[in-house]
Amino acid sequence: MKFNKIVMIGIGETSLDSVYWRKIDALGEKVVKLSKDSSEIEKQLMDADCLVVGFGVKVDENRIKNSPKLKYIGMLGTGYGNIDANYANSKKIAVTNIPGYSREAVAELVFGMILDHIRELERAKQRARKGDYSDSGYFVSEIKGKTFGIIGLGRNGSRVAEIALGFGADVRYWSRNRKKELESKGIKFEDIDVLIPKCDLLSLHLALTRETENFLNEKRIEKIKNDAVVINTSPMELVNLDALEKRLVKGDMTFILDHSDEMSEENLRKLSKYKNCMIYPPIGYITKEARIAKQDIFVGNMENFLKGSPTNKVN
Amino acid sequence: MKFNKIVMIGIGETSLDSVYWRKIDALGEKVVKLSKDSSEIEKQLMDADCLVVGFGVKVDENRIKNSPKLKYIGMLGTGYGNIDANYANSKKIAVTNIPGYSREAVAELVFGMILDHIRELERAKQRARKGDYSDSGYFVSEIKGKTFGIIGLGRNGSRVAEIALGFGADVRYWSRNRKKELESKGIKFEDIDVLIPKCDLLSLHLALTRETENFLNEKRIEKIKNDAVVINTSPMELVNLDALEKRLVKGDMTFILDHSDEMSEENLRKLSKYKNCMIYPPIGYITKEARIAKQDIFVGNMENFLKGSPTNKVN
Repeated sequence: MKFNKIVMIGIGETSLDSVYWRKIDALGEKVVKLSKDSSEIEKQLMDADCLVVGFGVKVDENRIKNSPKLKYIGMLGTGYGNIDANYANSKKIAVTNIPGYSREAVAELVFGMILDHIRELERAKQRARKGDYSDSGYFVSEIKGKTFGIIGLGRNGSRVAEIALGFGADVRYWSRNRKKELESKGIKFEDIDVLIPKCDLLSLHLALTRETENFLNEKRIEKIKNDAVVINTSPMELVNLDALEKRLVKGDMTFILDHSDEMSEENLRKLSKYKNCMIYPPIGYITKEARIAKQDIFVGNMENFLKGSPTNKVN
Repeated sequence: MKFNKIVMIGIGETSLDSVYWRKIDALGEKVVKLSKDSSEIEKQLMDADCLVVGFGVKVDENRIKNSPKLKYIGMLGTGYGNIDANYANSKKIAVTNIPGYSREAVAELVFGMILDHIRELERAKQRARKGDYSDSGYFVSEIKGKTFGIIGLGRNGSRVAEIALGFGADVRYWSRNRKKELESKGIKFEDIDVLIPKCDLLSLHLALTRETENFLNEKRIEKIKNDAVVINTSPMELVNLDALEKRLVKGDMTFILDHSDEMSEENLRKLSKYKNCMIYPPIGYITKEARIAKQDIFVGNMENFLKGSPTNKVN
């Protein structure tokens, strides 16, 4: 089985390795690649039965209406907020995404960021490069024994929790739903407002929804423990930036994040000023392993749909 | 019970926090602090019943012979190679050390060093500081699923093994003795020369003895897998430096170490040249937690000896 026509929008040449481009070519009688802003999109979708899109490509009710042959929409990524999956469902169009491919990559990054900070690794290497091999003047600490809070015990959060247990941290979490299986491993549930003031290390792993926007609000940010390290590998919309800045000014806590494009230039510049705010590029999901998993699942979703046993359908 | 006279040699003011200095003062009728090269040492030891020393202070047969009242020698550290513990024993003098105080600190550093390297964290932060938040151009990988070899499954090595299991690595080890308890957790024993060529990550945790000097010899270094990352937080005397350099030149593996003073300036300069050789200062044992544990055990050893139930006696 093949698709009659695959339309790909907003998926750059370098987003997929050549072996996966070849696989996709083999899955359609015809394959058309378009940029996000191409004027041809409407025309090409008229007779397409498969549409696959990258981040930031809108697939709203109107676009779906104007694609009468469409049977399948594939998202090259986890978040599919730009796709009207409900409307697609009403038209019997399957929408798929790629969940969890970067679980390990994100979880390991969290520990890399923590250890880099609490062991002052960057400064240590720089001192060594200048020939200073002294061990004095470091104020460094360990993960073991620390209260390690995880907000959101989903795919990524639960993996962070497991690794933190390996380090011997006292792992506690808040999540919308209790996770008894993880609790049986020694991870304790706490009410969110009891959890926050207790944590030496605090890692955010919430999906962005209307309910979670501004989740780390002023009241909660004020209650973060002195000397705590807060790590956010989730969207920064979870955090009240003004309140965060107010707290950063005091210099009594550290905030670490990997920034993609969710903050305005202005906010980014604001936060970059603070020595106790460590900003990384969005490198949480770019390991070799995650890239392969992502492409495998992406193409696998298309193949499985054609075989009649769809995977990672979200609608 | 108190000591009549405590002589402290080569223990600088900043080596102990004031609370511990006060504790020691309370443990002796008289406390004398001397530098390593003091000309007074011989004289002061004539009537001392307690001697405590820092690193690099020789306590050989002669010095013990000239200290007729001595009952106790305390080492402020783990290695006590400078103390003739056998001869001390023949004179019924207890020698104590401080084992394992930096177990967590060393093990966590190993993962900090690994993650810093395999996720290119330093470069990522530097790019972000210049305003470059792109996610392209990183060739980064994960710990999960990698073959993680540990040479020497003692105090530090076994802790590294446990944390590596938490990360989901395929953990294998070689050690002089089999450790069945750790094997039951999923850590596999391998013959050393079978282990080395298999490992993506390889961490050395051997004590330096006549048998382990040059342990990573030319033959073994040649067999290290391409693209492997080797971490040495143990003395560099374990490694054949000429052979290491030969391999570093090829650029097909990475070596990470924390240098204290075991390498000559010349060798240090030699290794620093290589981009695939990451050198840190000796920051493996300097966490706040390790510092407190070290001092607690140090003073505890003295107290316990006075109470008649000596701890951490090595002879």
